Amino acid sequence: MSNTSGSQLGPASRTHPEPISLPPSTSSAKFHEFLRRASAIVGDENLVVVAGQDQLQQQDYMDRSKVHDMFNILEKKTFLHSCTVAPKDVPGVQDIMRLANEMELPVWPFSMGRNLGYGGAAPRVSGSIGLDMGKHMNKVLKVDADSAYALVEPGVSFFDLHQYLVDHELRDKVWADCPDLGGGSVIGNTIERGIGYTPYGDHWMMHCGLEVVLPDGSLIRTGMGALPNPKADKNAPPHEQEPNECWQLFNYGFGPHLDGIFSQSNMGIVTKMGVWLMPNPGGSQTYMITFPRDDDLNRIIEIMRPLRVSMVLQNVPKLDNILVSAAMEGTRSSYTNSKELLTDAELDAIAEKLGLGRWNFYGCIYGPPEVREILWKVIKGAFSQIPGAQFYFPEDRPHDKALQTRKNTFVGIPSITELDWVSWLPNGGHLFFAPIAKLTGDDAEAQYELTRRRSEEFGFDFLGAFLVGVREIHHIVCIIFDREDPEMRTRAHKLIKLLIQEAADRGWGEYRAHLALMDQVAGTYNFNNGAHMKLSEKIKDALDPKGILSPGKNGVWPTAYKQYNRQVPNDE
Amino acid sequence: MSNTSGSQLGPASRTHPEPISLPPSTSSAKFHEFLRRASAIVGDENLVVVAGQDQLQQQDYMDRSKVHDMFNILEKKTFLHSCTVAPKDVPGVQDIMRLANEMELPVWPFSMGRNLGYGGAAPRVSGSIGLDMGKHMNKVLKVDADSAYALVEPGVSFFDLHQYLVDHELRDKVWADCPDLGGGSVIGNTIERGIGYTPYGDHWMMHCGLEVVLPDGSLIRTGMGALPNPKADKNAPPHEQEPNECWQLFNYGFGPHLDGIFSQSNMGIVTKMGVWLMPNPGGSQTYMITFPRDDDLNRIIEIMRPLRVSMVLQNVPKLDNILVSAAMEGTRSSYTNSKELLTDAELDAIAEKLGLGRWNFYGCIYGPPEVREILWKVIKGAFSQIPGAQFYFPEDRPHDKALQTRKNTFVGIPSITELDWVSWLPNGGHLFFAPIAKLTGDDAEAQYELTRRRSEEFGFDFLGAFLVGVREIHHIVCIIFDREDPEMRTRAHKLIKLLIQEAADRGWGEYRAHLALMDQVAGTYNFNNGAHMKLSEKIKDALDPKGILSPGKNGVWPTAYKQYNRQVPNDE
Repeated sequence: MSNTSGSQLGPASRTHPEPISLPPSTSSAKFHEFLRRASAIVGDENLVVVAGQDQLQQQDYMDRSKVHDMFNILEKKTFLHSCTVAPKDVPGVQDIMRLANEMELPVWPFSMGRNLGYGGAAPRVSGSIGLDMGKHMNKVLKVDADSAYALVEPGVSFFDLHQYLVDHELRDKVWADCPDLGGGSVIGNTIERGIGYTPYGDHWMMHCGLEVVLPDGSLIRTGMGALPNPKADKNAPPHEQEPNECWQLFNYGFGPHLDGIFSQSNMGIVTKMGVWLMPNPGGSQTYMITFPRDDDLNRIIEIMRPLRVSMVLQNVPKLDNILVSAAMEGTRSSYTNSKELLTDAELDAIAEKLGLGRWNFYGCIYGPPEVREILWKVIKGAFSQIPGAQFYFPEDRPHDKALQTRKNTFVGIPSITELDWVSWLPNGGHLFFAPIAKLTGDDAEAQYELTRRRSEEFGFDFLGAFLVGVREIHHIVCIIFDREDPEMRTRAHKLIKLLIQEAADRGWGEYRAHLALMDQVAGTYNFNNGAHMKLSEKIKDALDPKGILSPGKNGVWPTAYKQYNRQVPNDE
Repeated sequence: MSNTSGSQLGPASRTHPEPISLPPSTSSAKFHEFLRRASAIVGDENLVVVAGQDQLQQQDYMDRSKVHDMFNILEKKTFLHSCTVAPKDVPGVQDIMRLANEMELPVWPFSMGRNLGYGGAAPRVSGSIGLDMGKHMNKVLKVDADSAYALVEPGVSFFDLHQYLVDHELRDKVWADCPDLGGGSVIGNTIERGIGYTPYGDHWMMHCGLEVVLPDGSLIRTGMGALPNPKADKNAPPHEQEPNECWQLFNYGFGPHLDGIFSQSNMGIVTKMGVWLMPNPGGSQTYMITFPRDDDLNRIIEIMRPLRVSMVLQNVPKLDNILVSAAMEGTRSSYTNSKELLTDAELDAIAEKLGLGRWNFYGCIYGPPEVREILWKVIKGAFSQIPGAQFYFPEDRPHDKALQTRKNTFVGIPSITELDWVSWLPNGGHLFFAPIAKLTGDDAEAQYELTRRRSEEFGFDFLGAFLVGVREIHHIVCIIFDREDPEMRTRAHKLIKLLIQEAADRGWGEYRAHLALMDQVAGTYNFNNGAHMKLSEKIKDALDPKGILSPGKNGVWPTAYKQYNRQVPNDE
């Protein structure tokens, strides 16, 4: 580690250093004026100027990555905060927003900065003020195990929420769904519409009630939260007032239901969120089914559809291509010394060595033993139609990292094991290409054909997984690159841009995108001359006339930033 | 029936009659100018001026009720269209909106006008142009039974959608959820956040994809609909372009999720909507459980909560107070000659006569026989704890209208039998008081105590039902009055205003409200000085600067109408 003395890092002293990136059209003097005034709101100890090159070095995953994109595909400074500010409480957020409005400086909030594969904590407009929502606001405010919900702040990770249930001996009553990695923020993942793997895997669907600071600094509660609790102390500041008892029970309240405008957006900053917990189903059984042949895919998905739509498959099943499982068990070099792409024969050999299939399906059955038995009979019967399908329970494969991890994920026990697959390459970083597919064998096969072919043309091994929603598939293609290899990063970037274009040409759209690709993806959603985006931007301008909150997030550009920021800098 | 000659009713002639209500601040000359220009868009045969008093007479329920509130509690003309216009297609809607913007006239769209108990087809601002969306746009555009969805237009009723499934022999694959009454529009019910009784009973949650005409006449498709289908004819008008194949499969698309702003709102006019169909579960068993004592309520709900949260109760159970069931079997005068309120002893006698309890719980179990057997054992075991609970299947009570109707509703077969309870009084009309309650025995009991006591103080028999969502209760109190008795109507109105106030004082809010009560209910959702409403109105003003689309709907008043329309006319 290089020098991290106080003058460059950590709590800023009274004389703040110069940042690597200033906000757009902002002089150093103006920026320092902002720092002085922000410091009066949050205290100097909660202000970090991104000044030293050492801050751009790769940090340990769980340690921190709050100033930049740890898996950057463009130069670090393309998406870089000028500083980060960590408000102590909701009024601190409101005050920072009022200050940013007055000074016309862009603000980019993040909960914990773990939006891995999509840009981490980094802002779309370099030089933005990073608003570190999770540092201080990190409490599980309430768990009601009878009504099965929690109320959380932005800094609560999936680990934290799970630990809360463990510590309070509530796991026999309720579970919290978690995504592949447990280190991220529950709020951050949910508003970005991330998914998990229990029957409560559609996190956005399973949220209930938001408290939001709007761009002008005002505070709302959505749904039933808009109705005061008569027991609340009316003299307390609004964010401290005891909320309505139905806030986490009923989503819609009365009148327009506004929650959606705060997801994947820049319309407001979520300060509290209700999340529905899954009642303990009285038992569960994780299983894995391996399918030997690459071309089993079509049939697997066709068998899956009726079972999933009818909820015989009760949770979000994950169908991994062989290298996803292989990458968790070892690096590329542990399998081959070749620099060439892996051939089908080599992939078969890896599968055989690991006792896996070319496709590996992880699922779980929930309920008491009698119910599980009925469901397993149906599931096993259906997939037995595919020659060579093998059926395993976790106890059959005690050393299988993927299966043992899934066994936990499927019952809401978070981990970070899954990230091991980024070590497939040395200095591994990754990008996600994440198109939605129709839940049919033909569509899955067509997406697999295109994404594998193009990946290989660009020199990347194919790692992909199908996460099966009730009527569609989130197809997640992991583009793994060596972060220290600029040529490879550029190749990865070119590959994903081509995939986005070719997918759109076939009617496939991404559900989420990296900072560098948001504009391109948003541009593919252009029915009727981009009417949907025009509406988003009209709402954006109404709520945030100076355009200071996360300009460019998911392609939504306020008028104030439209002229010079539609293009990603340094992108050919 | 009185005179319905062409000059007063039906297709307007070249010389249009004078309406009973003109739009606000609009001269007769200007209104007739609108009629001439609207006629050029939709044709004279699709323009009806609400001119003759005979149009205000009560029509048969299924016949039509498109110009006024058939269950009016204020004078008919309080909420009355000046005329109705029925566009032939989406461009017709767009053209009418552009014309209304140019002429600054308020427009109130309705799908079929069956918003019974909440105002029917009538507008909040009297003299509005009624936009009859359902007359021509009434097609089931698509059903995909494999992916289990439908795409419908505003004029498709629950009867129509069910009939489509029957006609195409699809009922063995999919069912369409329906509310108590099948005559209403699928789109209308869903965007008003109505509910049904299968596991797909949360209609808003189960919608997927909207096509919307915005107040300025532009057209959007939400979610994946914003991504063009490459097979679409780009030269066709947008509303005719073949939609993206994932539009009805995945709700969220990319970026802000805007659907919610179009529910219970005046931000746009829904012209197409996707609705998820329920896969045929392979069997079902409707049941009824009767509980003998009025004070069994608390315990019933406490037993229900864990079963409902964990989805052992798979659908939306309905718990009826005795008079709801009794009113379906006969009028008040068939039970008593007394003008006095029914005493508890009389209610017990009615229950005994009908072989019912003071509370009657209707539910359904879904799945193959083995699964149903397990669930029924759990359910029966749990409710058997209540002394005197009786368990019935439909075959045990072939003449029980309520139970036989429920048997259909629970499997998506619509009816209008349930409306029979409005005949409890002669010329029966009704108002719904519909607060959300926490799913606990204490909360249900407290709401029952308050609403029954106040109902009786105002001289109304208590009819109420608890519809049990996953974590909350929709408590529906039916205030039945004689429409021909102005004094009784006024009493009903006073009662509901008091209930809204007293409920808010206890932290209870309504999920839906009659036209005459929208402002009051919206006013109770006033956390932090009405911050939520300020946000709704800011969005409203941005999308509809002249405020022409449904001003006042659910209490959302555009600036252009704020000064003179916040108060309901004729309301003391």
